[in-house]
Amino acid sequence: MLTLDDIIQNALREDIHTGDLTTLAVVPGSRPARARLVGKEPLTVAGISVFARVFYLLDSSIACTPCCSDGQQIETGSVMAYLSGDASMLLQGERVALNLLQRMCGIATLTASYVAEVSGTGVRIVDTRKTTPGLRVLEKYAVRRGGGFNHRTGLYDGILIKENHITAAGGISEAIRRARSYIPHTLKVEIETETVDQVEEALTAGADIIMLDNMDCTTMRHCVELIAGRATVEASGGVNLDTVRAIAETGVDIISVGALTHSARAMDISMLLD
Amino acid sequence: MLTLDDIIQNALREDIHTGDLTTLAVVPGSRPARARLVGKEPLTVAGISVFARVFYLLDSSIACTPCCSDGQQIETGSVMAYLSGDASMLLQGERVALNLLQRMCGIATLTASYVAEVSGTGVRIVDTRKTTPGLRVLEKYAVRRGGGFNHRTGLYDGILIKENHITAAGGISEAIRRARSYIPHTLKVEIETETVDQVEEALTAGADIIMLDNMDCTTMRHCVELIAGRATVEASGGVNLDTVRAIAETGVDIISVGALTHSARAMDISMLLD
Amino acid sequence: MLTLDDIIQNALREDIHTGDLTTLAVVPGSRPARARLVGKEPLTVAGISVFARVFYLLDSSIACTPCCSDGQQIETGSVMAYLSGDASMLLQGERVALNLLQRMCGIATLTASYVAEVSGTGVRIVDTRKTTPGLRVLEKYAVRRGGGFNHRTGLYDGILIKENHITAAGGISEAIRRARSYIPHTLKVEIETETVDQVEEALTAGADIIMLDNMDCTTMRHCVELIAGRATVEASGGVNLDTVRAIAETGVDIISVGALTHSARAMDISMLLD
Amino acid sequence: MLTLDDIIQNALREDIHTGDLTTLAVVPGSRPARARLVGKEPLTVAGISVFARVFYLLDSSIACTPCCSDGQQIETGSVMAYLSGDASMLLQGERVALNLLQRMCGIATLTASYVAEVSGTGVRIVDTRKTTPGLRVLEKYAVRRGGGFNHRTGLYDGILIKENHITAAGGISEAIRRARSYIPHTLKVEIETETVDQVEEALTAGADIIMLDNMDCTTMRHCVELIAGRATVEASGGVNLDTVRAIAETGVDIISVGALTHSARAMDISMLLD
Amino acid sequence: MLTLDDIIQNALREDIHTGDLTTLAVVPGSRPARARLVGKEPLTVAGISVFARVFYLLDSSIACTPCCSDGQQIETGSVMAYLSGDASMLLQGERVALNLLQRMCGIATLTASYVAEVSGTGVRIVDTRKTTPGLRVLEKYAVRRGGGFNHRTGLYDGILIKENHITAAGGISEAIRRARSYIPHTLKVEIETETVDQVEEALTAGADIIMLDNMDCTTMRHCVELIAGRATVEASGGVNLDTVRAIAETGVDIISVGALTHSARAMDISMLLD
Amino acid sequence: MLTLDDIIQNALREDIHTGDLTTLAVVPGSRPARARLVGKEPLTVAGISVFARVFYLLDSSIACTPCCSDGQQIETGSVMAYLSGDASMLLQGERVALNLLQRMCGIATLTASYVAEVSGTGVRIVDTRKTTPGLRVLEKYAVRRGGGFNHRTGLYDGILIKENHITAAGGISEAIRRARSYIPHTLKVEIETETVDQVEEALTAGADIIMLDNMDCTTMRHCVELIAGRATVEASGGVNLDTVRAIAETGVDIISVGALTHSARAMDISMLLD
Repeated sequence: MLTLDDIIQNALREDIHTGDLTTLAVVPGSRPARARLVGKEPLTVAGISVFARVFYLLDSSIACTPCCSDGQQIETGSVMAYLSGDASMLLQGERVALNLLQRMCGIATLTASYVAEVSGTGVRIVDTRKTTPGLRVLEKYAVRRGGGFNHRTGLYDGILIKENHITAAGGISEAIRRARSYIPHTLKVEIETETVDQVEEALTAGADIIMLDNMDCTTMRHCVELIAGRATVEASGGVNLDTVRAIAETGVDIISVGALTHSARAMDISMLLD
Repeated sequence: MLTLDDIIQNALREDIHTGDLTTLAVVPGSRPARARLVGKEPLTVAGISVFARVFYLLDSSIACTPCCSDGQQIETGSVMAYLSGDASMLLQGERVALNLLQRMCGIATLTASYVAEVSGTGVRIVDTRKTTPGLRVLEKYAVRRGGGFNHRTGLYDGILIKENHITAAGGISEAIRRARSYIPHTLKVEIETETVDQVEEALTAGADIIMLDNMDCTTMRHCVELIAGRATVEASGGVNLDTVRAIAETGVDIISVGALTHSARAMDISMLLD
Repeated sequence: MLTLDDIIQNALREDIHTGDLTTLAVVPGSRPARARLVGKEPLTVAGISVFARVFYLLDSSIACTPCCSDGQQIETGSVMAYLSGDASMLLQGERVALNLLQRMCGIATLTASYVAEVSGTGVRIVDTRKTTPGLRVLEKYAVRRGGGFNHRTGLYDGILIKENHITAAGGISEAIRRARSYIPHTLKVEIETETVDQVEEALTAGADIIMLDNMDCTTMRHCVELIAGRATVEASGGVNLDTVRAIAETGVDIISVGALTHSARAMDISMLLD
Repeated sequence: MLTLDDIIQNALREDIHTGDLTTLAVVPGSRPARARLVGKEPLTVAGISVFARVFYLLDSSIACTPCCSDGQQIETGSVMAYLSGDASMLLQGERVALNLLQRMCGIATLTASYVAEVSGTGVRIVDTRKTTPGLRVLEKYAVRRGGGFNHRTGLYDGILIKENHITAAGGISEAIRRARSYIPHTLKVEIETETVDQVEEALTAGADIIMLDNMDCTTMRHCVELIAGRATVEASGGVNLDTVRAIAETGVDIISVGALTHSARAMDISMLLD
Repeated sequence: MLTLDDIIQNALREDIHTGDLTTLAVVPGSRPARARLVGKEPLTVAGISVFARVFYLLDSSIACTPCCSDGQQIETGSVMAYLSGDASMLLQGERVALNLLQRMCGIATLTASYVAEVSGTGVRIVDTRKTTPGLRVLEKYAVRRGGGFNHRTGLYDGILIKENHITAAGGISEAIRRARSYIPHTLKVEIETETVDQVEEALTAGADIIMLDNMDCTTMRHCVELIAGRATVEASGGVNLDTVRAIAETGVDIISVGALTHSARAMDISMLLD
Repeated sequence: MLTLDDIIQNALREDIHTGDLTTLAVVPGSRPARARLVGKEPLTVAGISVFARVFYLLDSSIACTPCCSDGQQIETGSVMAYLSGDASMLLQGERVALNLLQRMCGIATLTASYVAEVSGTGVRIVDTRKTTPGLRVLEKYAVRRGGGFNHRTGLYDGILIKENHITAAGGISEAIRRARSYIPHTLKVEIETETVDQVEEALTAGADIIMLDNMDCTTMRHCVELIAGRATVEASGGVNLDTVRAIAETGVDIISVGALTHSARAMDISMLLD
């Protein structure tokens, strides 16, 4: 997996490569400058230190002083950071730093909307694996800063038995038995179900977490009552800002939302040179 | 810059890392399977060979046969590819392959909407540097498949003199002079202008391309008349699907749209195991 | 993390670098040869496909046909694989391939000894993070092939609250509460305890797994009775082949053994050219 | 070949990957702490700066002050280093730093035992290529710190003509002739022999170093007399702590011991937080 | 593409690898020393900061103070830099630093000779893609420091339609049309011509730059008159220090010279320890 | 160190990066073509398989059939290889493949000239560390193909005690003693001398190889007589094609020539599409 510094270095090389021709040609040499980072719409901050890190890796003599913190909600016009350093280096890092920050704030802000919708229900909003290739660690961080929680990071650190696994194993009970007898004792077993019968079988087989996949709210409520606290219940499928409250009120513990990382739009943020 | 294979390998490692625990535990060994890739909404295809490459790099014995081509518009329910291979490998590659394809089709589809809006005007819709860090080469490819064109790839292969450069150089004429006397003779000089006066100065100084930044349509039309074919004219700022036609009708040659890569939502595409 | 192929390529470059001088000087050109891989003592096999992969990556025209499989116990003198290919390539890969295989078989064999000692008790023998830097994925695989199980892979895919974490958090209950409210719902919470009082507090606080660290068998048995199936119980510390049976008979579920990866000696295996 | 920093970074990523979940969950934020590194058994130190480098690369604000030096012999209970820094970073680096140090001290300590056995004979104890893949440079360093010497690093920086090379070349004389006429004039030619006749032929052909492979002591003594200083003599095979003195007393110059790197057990060393 | 630091790190590892044996053996420990970098013949400087960077990356405690700047012409015996630091580190970096600097100065010096030959004509001397694999960015920099200009960096940032492209496209006009309709509007279209007829067709088709390939001076002069400022004119082929002035006097704008990077000899520069 | 494939991949990425714009624009799709590689002057071949490997790595469906072999001397007009494959891929690989081959043939050809000059004397012509950063392994290979021999590869696989080492160690005898007592027994000790007195001291101290640095021929002849076969003698400094024969006739064993890699000009070789 790429580290944060790898992600940033790749992005800088992608944009600058053999050099910023315009700056080399038009503004050779160095010239001190100051800049402000300003939010142009209300948003939940995520990635302000990633933004700062871009400039540090580009030119460690640039000072970037954040005046907000990840997880904070800010209003239109809020100054998010002050920067000072060589003008040409500020200009060279601007696009990459904004591309990362705008995306992360977008995810945090969208997550915060979902979290607000289910407030008071005790339900966790969690992410999925529908993330931008190469940026998962940043996007899952942004979900947390928006008040959400993470599902497993990838295929390697959690078990989620889906329909195809069940078919291949010959049934829910056998699939759960195989999982339990193989995986580290530190992991829970989660299984995807589509019917009440499957929920009952999963419960009997000792699933730790039961995902209710694409069920309507009535069925979900019935399943929650059936499970009665003997397993964690996760709702998945058909979740959007219009439906999430009703789903939460069925009594499920967890609602997973692909859109958090998949459909978040970039927030409008600008970097202004004084 | 990361190559396509680097991007895919990073994405696969990000998701699979030490192994797909569920498959290792529940479905050990191999089992032949078939799958179909299906578009769940109308879309313009981009990245079908990227999708196939994911499976090839994961397991070269998987066969992925596309039945659409990049640039093609498909309807809801269209089969985009057939796959066959080991079931557990198909499942392991599914998420990464879809994450890439859905994003690329989203960009191509959005681009195609903009291109359709300006049809008949001869205007080029072009992208910007507001791309996902690490994925620029794929996103710019998707713009082309949607009928758009590319602006410079990064800071290294084109000249765009912005306000800050002009200020630092001491004026438009000097900035253009410096650019011309430095850069390879194979590149054109583009300059950003915000007023009619600036356009006149840029024209006099011999700019090859004049960007009209955030001007209203009346002003843009005036500038186009002023320039009268002596430079290429690019409109930028405030462009969306509602405004793009009017902007095109001012007579500009090029309209650059950050939203193509910045705000495209992922297309709904599924991979179904038979 | 390094992949298997990265590990092998690094090892080959470490040994061969600019070329095998002796072969270049004394045996230029190619000459077909055959070889046998022979176990020189009784052992449990692990890594036979790693062994074969070394030769494949060095020279894909070498054929390596295993005649044993991972997890199998073999006797002195057993042929483990047949190889054929260019003599100089067989000689160049021999040392690296053996260095990996001998270590992996050593771990599997030692693990199998521990597993045999606790047979019939239902106890799981699990590994720790005391592995060779860079080779963890191979060593944890070898533990599984020896009949053991894996603990968490690293710090990122499991929770183990140790004494220092407890102190910093201000107590066991608070530490468990913090863990639960942060981590993915797919992970269990494990906590290290050193006294019966700590076990009781951990139980009350809802720990999923309680580690009994360096307790004597009497105390462990008491703790097992106290826990009474409400949490998984892991014994740790002071475990060796002489003590493991008695520990298992206290009723714990899991015994973790650093020595599996830390103190396994390499098995005696030779590659003989015909 | 991996550099020291590559080895450490790989090991840290292997263990920490996306983050130390326990610390992130239970002990967020920073908290100053102190720790001591303590030897729990008598040992020869090797790798104390490697240990310190792990913490430096993880968090350059951690201070690690060694109070022993490589090559030094210490007693049980000796403090080997003091550390101070953020508690959570000390905990995150502990396992990787110890895994490297314990292994290196193990090799140095075992080497020192061999060196002590042959004291007064003037014989050099040297290592082999039977090292841990990826860690050769550290392990060969540890051999030197234990008082041993290095054989060639790999296949690229020394000549060792073995039985298979001799056969392929058509005899000892021809093999030595080919080596001499190809290799840089800066390298000596070493050849492996199994009989007195072979020793005589090697001597006649002008070998610089003659390896006596798996000979009994009587034969070795005879060969040493035969060679009479006209070549360096290296004994190999069947060497252990019980046999090494007798082998040294045959008059050979060099004894190579695979066990130095192959069978050294990790030393018992702990890092204790105050 | 390799960055400067990648190039230097690769070169250092290539030379030092597991360590400078002579220094480790003969001069262990550190010893302060001073050195001077001296030009042994008249030359145009390029790469003095590359030279300094080698030492910085090897040992950041070495001070390297340049007393010349890139682009400057120096005489025999000029001190180019002063260095101070640990003697053994100065010795270890010397060869790599000189190998890079001598090559770069060689290119700058040769370029300056060509530039001097065409002085007063206004012609640009430009480089080609005939550079040392892996060092292109340094070599093109050196050309600029010698007073030359760069042609496109590679195949990706400029268009040069050659004979084979023309044939494949079915003619000059079609080739230029295709290029124009595909490439970013920021790039000019250059085409290679071998006859006056081709020049006329290229001009009609709207080529931005016309390369006159291997034409004699009379033909070139004729073409320049024909083109009459409607396209930039580049001369290529058969250029050397004896012919370049005559070519420049034909009125072309650009002369490309492969020899700048291809045939430059290393300048004689020494590093002397006091 | 970079492997051959690393060198080629870096060079291809350096040249092609995001794509060959001209081909993408003007000649999209594939078109079969044939080409010939032709030597345009007499030369000694080195690197023909490197040339072929470039095309293989770029597009494994290209067939490149060499009709010469490394070490062979060819005349003007000789066909060196035939290629067939997709026209656009042949064009994309041409420049990189030629850049490598022309350089390697240049080195082999220059080496062959030196070797021819000393024919009959039994003297070895050897290279130095004055190689192109990143390409040493290819350049040292080319020296061998030209009939020369290699000196040590780098600082890590040979001992060369220079003036500064001697000064730091306190004299020639002490420097040699230190080297001998540290280095692997597989390496010889070489020392640089500038006077007859130094030669005598080196001989007494048991140097294996004595370098005569920048001595005139009379002094060298005297030193050779003094050494009388008790050490290998290497001449260095002031060697060129005019002086090398006289130096060889002084009776030295080895002559090292920096110019072999430092000043070789690229051979004139073309790739012609049919």
